[in-house]
Amino acid sequence: MSSSLSVGTVTAAPATIHDLPTPALVIDEGALAGNLAAMAAVLPGRRLRPHVKATKCTSLARRQHALGHVGFTCATPREVTGLAAAGLGDDLLLANESLDPVRLAAMAAVQDRARVTVAVDSAETVAAAARAGLREAIVDVDVGMPRCGVTADDAGAIADLARRAGMSVRGVMGYEGHLMMVADRAERAEKVAAAMDVLARAAADVGGDVVSAGGTGTFDLHAGAATTEVQAGSYSLMDSHYATLGLPFAQAAWVAGTVISHGRGWAVVDAGLKSLGMDHGNPRIDGCTVWYCADEHVVFSVDGGGALPPIGSRVRVVPAHLDPTVAMHACAWVLRGDEVVDRWEIDLRGW
Amino acid sequence: MSSSLSVGTVTAAPATIHDLPTPALVIDEGALAGNLAAMAAVLPGRRLRPHVKATKCTSLARRQHALGHVGFTCATPREVTGLAAAGLGDDLLLANESLDPVRLAAMAAVQDRARVTVAVDSAETVAAAARAGLREAIVDVDVGMPRCGVTADDAGAIADLARRAGMSVRGVMGYEGHLMMVADRAERAEKVAAAMDVLARAAADVGGDVVSAGGTGTFDLHAGAATTEVQAGSYSLMDSHYATLGLPFAQAAWVAGTVISHGRGWAVVDAGLKSLGMDHGNPRIDGCTVWYCADEHVVFSVDGGGALPPIGSRVRVVPAHLDPTVAMHACAWVLRGDEVVDRWEIDLRGW
Repeated sequence: MSSSLSVGTVTAAPATIHDLPTPALVIDEGALAGNLAAMAAVLPGRRLRPHVKATKCTSLARRQHALGHVGFTCATPREVTGLAAAGLGDDLLLANESLDPVRLAAMAAVQDRARVTVAVDSAETVAAAARAGLREAIVDVDVGMPRCGVTADDAGAIADLARRAGMSVRGVMGYEGHLMMVADRAERAEKVAAAMDVLARAAADVGGDVVSAGGTGTFDLHAGAATTEVQAGSYSLMDSHYATLGLPFAQAAWVAGTVISHGRGWAVVDAGLKSLGMDHGNPRIDGCTVWYCADEHVVFSVDGGGALPPIGSRVRVVPAHLDPTVAMHACAWVLRGDEVVDRWEIDLRGW
Repeated sequence: MSSSLSVGTVTAAPATIHDLPTPALVIDEGALAGNLAAMAAVLPGRRLRPHVKATKCTSLARRQHALGHVGFTCATPREVTGLAAAGLGDDLLLANESLDPVRLAAMAAVQDRARVTVAVDSAETVAAAARAGLREAIVDVDVGMPRCGVTADDAGAIADLARRAGMSVRGVMGYEGHLMMVADRAERAEKVAAAMDVLARAAADVGGDVVSAGGTGTFDLHAGAATTEVQAGSYSLMDSHYATLGLPFAQAAWVAGTVISHGRGWAVVDAGLKSLGMDHGNPRIDGCTVWYCADEHVVFSVDGGGALPPIGSRVRVVPAHLDPTVAMHACAWVLRGDEVVDRWEIDLRGW
């Protein structure tokens, strides 16, 4: 935390973190580069299909693309069309189901400049994708987490439906999201292997050459599996929830806030429910105890009875869950130390 | 829930709820009108200063203004400048502290067309407001909730500082947010009265004619207090958290989602952590049990083993906390029954 006040300078283009309008999503450029390199060392090139739902930012995706991860995983049609518009359309996978004819048509319309593949898990989603003119599908398989995906037993039938509707079927995907936070690594590995056995069985029925799975919590547990590509996304910026797993990724993003008030033993920073994803609980402030969050406030005390950071100073608020946090911000500020070196639009927000 | 599929029609301007792109924030026009009328009956005209942080929508604020609530409460400078730009600047109160010189200057710049009052609770916030050229202040008083606000004992000194800095001091505000959800009405009333006694003591030292306090949970408990105006906002649209209090306001907003997948006893709707405020817990779906939320999904089962709503049908997802939910959406769709009658921009988002 810094004691510098920013009330004395009126700047439109912030030079340092102390000039940023808050609450501000910030990215440490060095930590980001370290995370990208650490992942690329384990999962080089197409072995990683970065999930952009975590970051929603074509500027960040461009850095992943430059490292050889030319395919991307998307959760929304908007992420697909936005990546295509940014020239990052080598191989875009909508790893989610959609029934929206307008958005499916928008994805089909970028197939002249992008390769687009859509997940299907029912007759209805196959029909909607085919009717919109999408050419390639992947069968989404339930590997144990109750969410989207057909059972492995029915995967072949869905593939047949898609082929009969005129689509090419590239393979299968199955997200073992229920295993991301299994604390014990050996237990996590064992359960991932079992889930991937289910996916491999479906893959044999479906055909194609893609077996897409995984996430940040299981990124290095797919070496012996049928998995051809891993869909991790949060690894690039991280959050306090994933940090509990001891992964080789550093915290590279947080929300910078300004101390706006001192109370009787507490301070208030101007970040809150509208700038922080809250589904994994309160954010973290190092050396402090967070009391609670309100719409535009985090109230906290300093551990050990230390002095409160001065009114006007900046505080680093680390969100518990990165993905929804990023989606609340229009832009991210890229820092080198305290210096602001870039501003990246969070340009893949919305649906 | 409806069984109609929207995959057959490609519409840019949705005619009914079944055509809406989802997840969609929707507002029931009749329920909204009922809530606005119910509140205006208890707190007519300037007795209510609607808080726009809950709704962030000038179209909705215009309806409150038309009922005689011509002053508004704001949590961010953006809400102040946006209301001023919309011609709703009769009397705008930033009921929050800011040290941001750019945003304070932006608020000062609209004083030619709007009356702007800013909350202060420290020498630093007084100095920042005065330096930006803001002309009117209110002293924010701690009435028992640990957040912003000076102690009642020190309120007079802050008022003196503001006057010496050339500002006019209109009075005091004190938000008893810690009392909003006290379940027993009599206990809530008693505690509100005690908190307002603190505020009245500060008001006597500060001077001015404004005593601003309250919220949706305590809107009708200020009759015997010094309070001159109540700052409620959530009453207009409501959420499942406030609904537990038995207030005379109906649920007027929710998130419409589309069922995109069926599992083995569960269904998946395309609303999730990026379209629902989660700090008060999971959203509600009537007649169903919500299992969990993911970034773009709510997974649920139907109570009593009833049939799952068909793939492609619309589901009403009621957020537990309205305020952060609204801030996640670029627009709200106004419904009369199932018919879409208007689209309102959520144009006061951001800071």
